[in-house]
Amino acid sequence: MVNAFDDRARAGLDPELGALIARREAVLGPAYRLFYERPLQLVRGEGVHLYDPDGNEYLDAYNNVPSVGHSHPRVAGAVARQAARLNTHTRYLAEETVAYAERLVATHDPAIERVMFTCTGSEAVDLALRIATFRESRRGVVVTANAYHGVTAAAAAVSPSLGEGVPLGPHVRTVPPPRDDRGGDPAAELGRAVGAAMADLERHGFPPAALLIDSLLSSDGLRPDPPGLLGPAVEAARAAGALYIADEVQAGFARTGESMWGYQRHGVSPDLVVMGKPMGNGMPIGGLAARGALLDEFGAAVRYFNTFGGNSVCVAAADAVLDVIEEEGLAENAARVGERLRAGIAELAAGTSLLGGVRGAGLFLAADLLDPGTGRPSPELAGRVVNGLRDRGVLISATGELGETLKIRPLLPFRPEHADRVVAALAEVVDELERDPG
Amino acid sequence: MVNAFDDRARAGLDPELGALIARREAVLGPAYRLFYERPLQLVRGEGVHLYDPDGNEYLDAYNNVPSVGHSHPRVAGAVARQAARLNTHTRYLAEETVAYAERLVATHDPAIERVMFTCTGSEAVDLALRIATFRESRRGVVVTANAYHGVTAAAAAVSPSLGEGVPLGPHVRTVPPPRDDRGGDPAAELGRAVGAAMADLERHGFPPAALLIDSLLSSDGLRPDPPGLLGPAVEAARAAGALYIADEVQAGFARTGESMWGYQRHGVSPDLVVMGKPMGNGMPIGGLAARGALLDEFGAAVRYFNTFGGNSVCVAAADAVLDVIEEEGLAENAARVGERLRAGIAELAAGTSLLGGVRGAGLFLAADLLDPGTGRPSPELAGRVVNGLRDRGVLISATGELGETLKIRPLLPFRPEHADRVVAALAEVVDELERDPG
Repeated sequence: MVNAFDDRARAGLDPELGALIARREAVLGPAYRLFYERPLQLVRGEGVHLYDPDGNEYLDAYNNVPSVGHSHPRVAGAVARQAARLNTHTRYLAEETVAYAERLVATHDPAIERVMFTCTGSEAVDLALRIATFRESRRGVVVTANAYHGVTAAAAAVSPSLGEGVPLGPHVRTVPPPRDDRGGDPAAELGRAVGAAMADLERHGFPPAALLIDSLLSSDGLRPDPPGLLGPAVEAARAAGALYIADEVQAGFARTGESMWGYQRHGVSPDLVVMGKPMGNGMPIGGLAARGALLDEFGAAVRYFNTFGGNSVCVAAADAVLDVIEEEGLAENAARVGERLRAGIAELAAGTSLLGGVRGAGLFLAADLLDPGTGRPSPELAGRVVNGLRDRGVLISATGELGETLKIRPLLPFRPEHADRVVAALAEVVDELERDPG
Repeated sequence: MVNAFDDRARAGLDPELGALIARREAVLGPAYRLFYERPLQLVRGEGVHLYDPDGNEYLDAYNNVPSVGHSHPRVAGAVARQAARLNTHTRYLAEETVAYAERLVATHDPAIERVMFTCTGSEAVDLALRIATFRESRRGVVVTANAYHGVTAAAAAVSPSLGEGVPLGPHVRTVPPPRDDRGGDPAAELGRAVGAAMADLERHGFPPAALLIDSLLSSDGLRPDPPGLLGPAVEAARAAGALYIADEVQAGFARTGESMWGYQRHGVSPDLVVMGKPMGNGMPIGGLAARGALLDEFGAAVRYFNTFGGNSVCVAAADAVLDVIEEEGLAENAARVGERLRAGIAELAAGTSLLGGVRGAGLFLAADLLDPGTGRPSPELAGRVVNGLRDRGVLISATGELGETLKIRPLLPFRPEHADRVVAALAEVVDELERDPG
């Protein structure tokens, strides 16, 4: 995994930290990974900052779950009030759950009429796949080459980024992520690749069920451009009888700055939308939004009861998140501060051969680390930048096919001075790398 | 679905309630079901009671999620404090998450050394299946004939109780639930059936991966007896190379009164344990507990990151749940009050031909409704009892192959007078049925 702690380095850590890591490994086991060369213990979060046990402050330019701000009083207050009043499930009637569902649907494309609640993005992807493959025994799924869509068995089987230890299903085909930095017409190329993958599925006895795609191609190294990118791919999917499932777990809830949903910047209308991470600012809530008719056949044959899905407390949190996004103007803020942050990184990149490919949308940005000798992508240098920033109190991570790409994904209430601090810290680390490229 | 509201009855309801149901159906769609002939709208819960918008009080003898009591101040307080301080994930270090994992493991069989966190029981089942089928390409799974194990694609494929609309996988075999009311040796019979199912899987090219079984056979109509029931079945599974996965989503966390975990009353030691519903008293948290070595191979090849799994707020809730179970002596209470409730229902059953087969463990009880003419199971009469109790302010539901079985599953802090109230209300409804069996 990119940016994973290597347990062999444990002996070199502070003894207390090392002891906690040893306990953790004993009880949680080896499937769990930690971030950073020196893992970070956290005890408090407030606004865009996190704090370790020694009171050190970290600027959070990474976490897209507590998206409206750590421990946001509006959300924490809603959670506290609801937990003290009632927390129940959807087999009883609750006005709040219905009202939130209506409010959420209203933020989507007009064709989207319904929502179903889950607890995680993985469960939402899993449900979307169940619905898409329910029709006419269709089973084939097309995803991008380094896609990540979740941890259930069905979601993991369509997540090539999990690596060779997690085989893709025989019903899965991948397409290369489009690149807008290599000439050509990335939208048309993606459309052709999706069409060919659909045909190949059909040819192998897997009639295509779905094109499942993250609206920003986040785990493919963040490839959101140009706007409109997904149009021909969606057309190709529909021509093959497949549904278009928009994975908005990363792109959604105002992250892109331009709109509430990442698919909106591509001018496409999804059949199914999966939502998760920032939906409840850290409370476990995810959801599936859908064209109404798509749920009729499925819902008539299949009952769906997710015990905690749509529970009173998580819905209260999610409703408060929409309040905060609207009242604090976080979409506009993401656009404005994201632009400033991007300009700062681009300026830095212009002055060094180590940094290239600055890209992104709103407050989700990426840049590649390049080997100064060969100009090739350098995951090693990216790792040094990520850890160098951590040592300077700025949290980001890495992504991309090789892990060569900085993943900069600040909390939505980032202010201009926070963006400037990220750029200044990055400038320091790049300067250090220039002097000692390793 | 058993005890489902029939939407054709909407016109006969109070207009405000009918309007809310119509809004709900429009936005959530047809896969969602409501309980009762007259659905129940809830606005508040406290201790063992729930309240509707008119202030009517309902005694909760059904919900096993808010198991230590609705809006329990200890749990709600822990949630409120943690939500205001920090809510983050397992790629940072948090002492609280490690400490809770250790505490949870210590409640299990000594062979269980590790835990992995999910958000739901479905995700825990799904992960258990991923781990069990990771070994040597084993894929076969044996479950009981009316089992329910969850809503992800993989969990639904091993859940025959979801009905014909949800096909079982080709790698799945079912065994009849054991009956201790028909003579013979139910434990030996179950063992033989599991052995035969394992052999049949092998014969069809699906080397057995797991026996997945609810420790109380809850959705098979609650068949927990005799204690020790599962011994031969577990032996048969292991002889075939399969793991034993204990589904403790319903049976766990002191529900049975005798012990923390349902498998303990059968004297068996699981390979994997899945937990969910009552774990966080309504906060979405589930988990997988495991023999340590089982996670080594899986964890080395597969990284598992569940964004919300093991998050700070849900762990705080789960830790408070263990505090409450211990400090309020809820296991002992479940044993004592459960016995009183069971005796009351048994006494009632002795005086009527309508009610039979009283059974259960701790505060999870069942009784069958029987047609007075034929003595056969009567789902119709069970439905009338469930709705008759609801009209008298007592909440239960139904289960079993046909829906003929009352499912009585009170909150763990039930006091003797609450048990007596359930029995008194049940006596009234039975009396009504005696006079008018329909």
